[in-house]
Amino acid sequence: MPATVVAKGASTSEESTQARPGRTWCRHHYKTSSSYSPRFAFHAMNTNPHFVPTPASIPPSDVVYRLGYDPQLGPANHHPLNPVAFLLRAAQIYPDKLAIAHPNVPRPVHYSYATWAQRIQNLAYALIRAGIKPGDRVAVIAPNSPMIAEAHHGILAARAIITPVNTRLKPLEVAYILEHSGASLLLIDHEYTQLVEGTKVPMIVSHDTGGVDDPYEEFLSLGRQFSSEKGWEGLDAERDEDAGAVLCYTSGTTGRPKGVLTTYRGSYLGAVANAYEARITKDSTYLWVLPMFHAAGWTFPWANVFAFATQITLRTVNYSHIWQHLLHSNVTHYCGAPTVQIGIVNEPGAKQPPQPVTAIIAGAAPTPHVIGELEKIGINPVHVYGLTCTYGPFTRNYDQPFWKSLSLQDRSKLIARQGHAFATADEVRVVHQPQEGKDPNVLVDVPRDGKTIGEIVTRGNIVMKEYFRDPEATRVAFQGGYFRSGDLAVMYPDGTVAIMDRSKDIIISGGENASSLAIEQELATHPHVLEVSVVARQHHKWGERPMAFVTLHPQHQSRWAGKHPEFATDLKRHARERLPGFACPEWVKVVPELPKTSTGKILKTDLRKIAAKL
Amino acid sequence: MPATVVAKGASTSEESTQARPGRTWCRHHYKTSSSYSPRFAFHAMNTNPHFVPTPASIPPSDVVYRLGYDPQLGPANHHPLNPVAFLLRAAQIYPDKLAIAHPNVPRPVHYSYATWAQRIQNLAYALIRAGIKPGDRVAVIAPNSPMIAEAHHGILAARAIITPVNTRLKPLEVAYILEHSGASLLLIDHEYTQLVEGTKVPMIVSHDTGGVDDPYEEFLSLGRQFSSEKGWEGLDAERDEDAGAVLCYTSGTTGRPKGVLTTYRGSYLGAVANAYEARITKDSTYLWVLPMFHAAGWTFPWANVFAFATQITLRTVNYSHIWQHLLHSNVTHYCGAPTVQIGIVNEPGAKQPPQPVTAIIAGAAPTPHVIGELEKIGINPVHVYGLTCTYGPFTRNYDQPFWKSLSLQDRSKLIARQGHAFATADEVRVVHQPQEGKDPNVLVDVPRDGKTIGEIVTRGNIVMKEYFRDPEATRVAFQGGYFRSGDLAVMYPDGTVAIMDRSKDIIISGGENASSLAIEQELATHPHVLEVSVVARQHHKWGERPMAFVTLHPQHQSRWAGKHPEFATDLKRHARERLPGFACPEWVKVVPELPKTSTGKILKTDLRKIAAKL
Repeated sequence: MPATVVAKGASTSEESTQARPGRTWCRHHYKTSSSYSPRFAFHAMNTNPHFVPTPASIPPSDVVYRLGYDPQLGPANHHPLNPVAFLLRAAQIYPDKLAIAHPNVPRPVHYSYATWAQRIQNLAYALIRAGIKPGDRVAVIAPNSPMIAEAHHGILAARAIITPVNTRLKPLEVAYILEHSGASLLLIDHEYTQLVEGTKVPMIVSHDTGGVDDPYEEFLSLGRQFSSEKGWEGLDAERDEDAGAVLCYTSGTTGRPKGVLTTYRGSYLGAVANAYEARITKDSTYLWVLPMFHAAGWTFPWANVFAFATQITLRTVNYSHIWQHLLHSNVTHYCGAPTVQIGIVNEPGAKQPPQPVTAIIAGAAPTPHVIGELEKIGINPVHVYGLTCTYGPFTRNYDQPFWKSLSLQDRSKLIARQGHAFATADEVRVVHQPQEGKDPNVLVDVPRDGKTIGEIVTRGNIVMKEYFRDPEATRVAFQGGYFRSGDLAVMYPDGTVAIMDRSKDIIISGGENASSLAIEQELATHPHVLEVSVVARQHHKWGERPMAFVTLHPQHQSRWAGKHPEFATDLKRHARERLPGFACPEWVKVVPELPKTSTGKILKTDLRKIAAKL
Repeated sequence: MPATVVAKGASTSEESTQARPGRTWCRHHYKTSSSYSPRFAFHAMNTNPHFVPTPASIPPSDVVYRLGYDPQLGPANHHPLNPVAFLLRAAQIYPDKLAIAHPNVPRPVHYSYATWAQRIQNLAYALIRAGIKPGDRVAVIAPNSPMIAEAHHGILAARAIITPVNTRLKPLEVAYILEHSGASLLLIDHEYTQLVEGTKVPMIVSHDTGGVDDPYEEFLSLGRQFSSEKGWEGLDAERDEDAGAVLCYTSGTTGRPKGVLTTYRGSYLGAVANAYEARITKDSTYLWVLPMFHAAGWTFPWANVFAFATQITLRTVNYSHIWQHLLHSNVTHYCGAPTVQIGIVNEPGAKQPPQPVTAIIAGAAPTPHVIGELEKIGINPVHVYGLTCTYGPFTRNYDQPFWKSLSLQDRSKLIARQGHAFATADEVRVVHQPQEGKDPNVLVDVPRDGKTIGEIVTRGNIVMKEYFRDPEATRVAFQGGYFRSGDLAVMYPDGTVAIMDRSKDIIISGGENASSLAIEQELATHPHVLEVSVVARQHHKWGERPMAFVTLHPQHQSRWAGKHPEFATDLKRHARERLPGFACPEWVKVVPELPKTSTGKILKTDLRKIAAKL
């Protein structure tokens, strides 16, 4: 593990260990709520024996709702939309309610909204103290845990851009993202420091303990000191609602990761929509199964706070822990890809939770099997669809009353459709793909026949701002005045969208998007490979896994004659050194030649057919 | 009743009676939903024997979601917020769901979302055909009925400004509003045409029948013809989300009505917040008890559509009808002032409805009696507070878990507080009132002691744009960079706001705001009155009623000596000729002199004390 590099301008950790006197806990009027709702399994009271007091969780100052809106600089009737405002309302209205619990770790922590808002305020001040300026990128590499949840609010409160990094990437990919994003600071969980060995980006390491000796906690404490108790009023709120808020790198449709930049406005509207659509309220408990680094957790880090809900974070997708909380922690909502849903229903001990539970499913369409198994144990599946470029969900499958009379099989077919535009998502169309000789800016809708395949395009406030530092990719993505999803779909007569081919290239493996192009690029670096093409193949556990079709370089054909399985092993080893696990090919097939069009393009559709028959 | 004046550019009604051939009802895929949810008492099917087909309710064209956003003119990732978009989503996703029912009239009507969206589209085209340009004001004088509900969407779809007029006003006040707003067109219910006798504003009269012979229906049909079936795509959506959407006249705090202009952005955000806060969903049925002309029905005309809920309109507050629907029409939500709530709980036959019901209460704080009576029959009271200038609700009383253990009396005291800033409402403060010699632009918060009285001020997106054509009043209203509510309140340590005096002047009578200043101005026109001061006095039925304290002109004192009751009768008659019923004084007391400050200001606080003791 590299030594903790303290951000520029930050003092040494020795200074921060000097405990500063806490302010008097003067909010006596909240005492009456110490008997807070017995429906919650966790309580955020300081009297809880499992509660570990930390420098950062010293009692919050009186929560002041004001987020530094300067009356002299903006009109009183037009506030920039800013999801950080949700946190201040929650801390004001339900200060003692449990905001977040992190239970399945050696040193569990849980914070009330008042304490959590204070921690987030401390984080914002700590970032500013460390030299972070508005618009700077702050990268986060962490599993689901308080730090990454706090980062979604605190980095925005400092007017910087959060850049969550997929923890499953390889060091080279992470290095590319840190370099391309120009991150000024890195918040990193101790388990992932090997991903950034040798980086020059200053970093703060969290040991995920909440303890006084944790460098992340020291960082927060320094922020608190730096604040001089100016509180939220001392922080300038972002005045431009179209400013960048989140920069998520996707391995979407091309080889190099692209940075999807989203805005404060979109994050606010997406979060409100997700809270509304999922019916999350102050009585809800949201379980973090979806990694928060995936498209900023589909805006749920803010949606849950808008709703005053409780969040529970799990570092890993551990089905035993998930069931512990479904059965005993009053969990009402979670998000996850179908693969995860399969894991949940297949876990021994799965049974109907005592409270209603809604499972928000995306990443791929749920199968009748998954829907049936979820419903059997009283979990309500809600199918949504979206991309990193659309803040997560931008369509939802809306159930119709007549579905009640259908068989599970028939109903599942309808649930599997991606549905209609989401609340606040504005417009979704399916248009003919650009054809040679036609103007690519003229979009023509496919007929609503459930048969004609076209591309899903969308407009509206929950469409990304741009591909960061990539004007050409941005131009192409918005050609025709719509965001081109790259996903191929049909439209049914009732206006529902149904994806036919997720896109020509993407392989959805365990909920991760693997770009076949990126995999091909790495496999092609094997000295014996002549040509390679990678397609998705069904996998019983991961939904899909990559399958590589390879032709050997003539020079090396004789060497591997009769030893194709050995070559496959060698190529897989080669891949593992270069690619995240989800992108490594599960199968390698050596073929004499690849099927191609007359113009030389590889016919992936043919390869998919071959893969499907194997 | 004046003859129907057809708007400029409109053809004669003879033309419109020629039935135009309806388009083929080609949406076969919806047929499966003819067995729509049995939970709804009303069905919008054409097969319903009570359904009266009208020219405007001919089958809708294929609903196209697009609202005329021109891709060439705006970025794909930034749509102007526009509540009309809610309607298009509803019509797209739940075309056959009951959108609105108008049952308690000789010729009941009810429309599915597909049909209703078509009617609203027709209205937009009809307005454009009649010469309405973006930004023009279209006045509406109507009780709760389909026309005024449609106007909230259709006028905005034509990019005009809806100007709802309180039906309880006097002709002179209505004339003032029509003149001041510069209304280009008037949609008026037949029952209220006497309010606008002699007006030069072109008008469309609705007989509220939905029948082919109804001038309003003819108007819609002309719109349909004019559309040439271009549908929603033929209508330009408003591109400036800060454009005026609604112009509501309030008799707020001064004598002359002021025009409160609100925006598309605020209406959108307010509606989403109200749907979320009231938990209105597609399974909800909203009963229109609150007059829709009150602050645009607190944004509920859009909130209900955002939620895909069903709306039921009642022309009058008829408690028998309200109970008919609470018990038999699956009503889940309604809004109303405490006076109306008293009427509801006191109605013979009141009993627990079969479904959960939420009563959204504003206009005055609900008393323990009202709260207790509502809860006794299973109705959940939600107390919100707001002004016309804040799109209706901008604070909400958020219940706390520990309240469960309190007595009704103690709990009611907490429920009676106006609470915290509403979802999307941003910031609420209570500040010291401007003092002589101090800068009125410097706002100083009162201590959070539950004792110190200050003025409620607010900022944010659900604060009005301006007082229409009144820059000076606008300037004063926004002095200090906040909207000055004029309402006096304290702030408790937990940040809840509680109104102490609704304001020095306003009298809330039956949910109506009566300006004491306006009443005084009219009473002062009585030739025998020397001085007059009007204050609120508690009333068992109306909550408050105006009480007038009068000194007689010396010339006329002898005439009324010993005959003060007779003078009171005469002054009340004088008032009835000049004021709406709710503003007429219920009591008149002749006094030798009015209590005053050393600087000559009348001490209304003293008069209120006297009134309270009577």
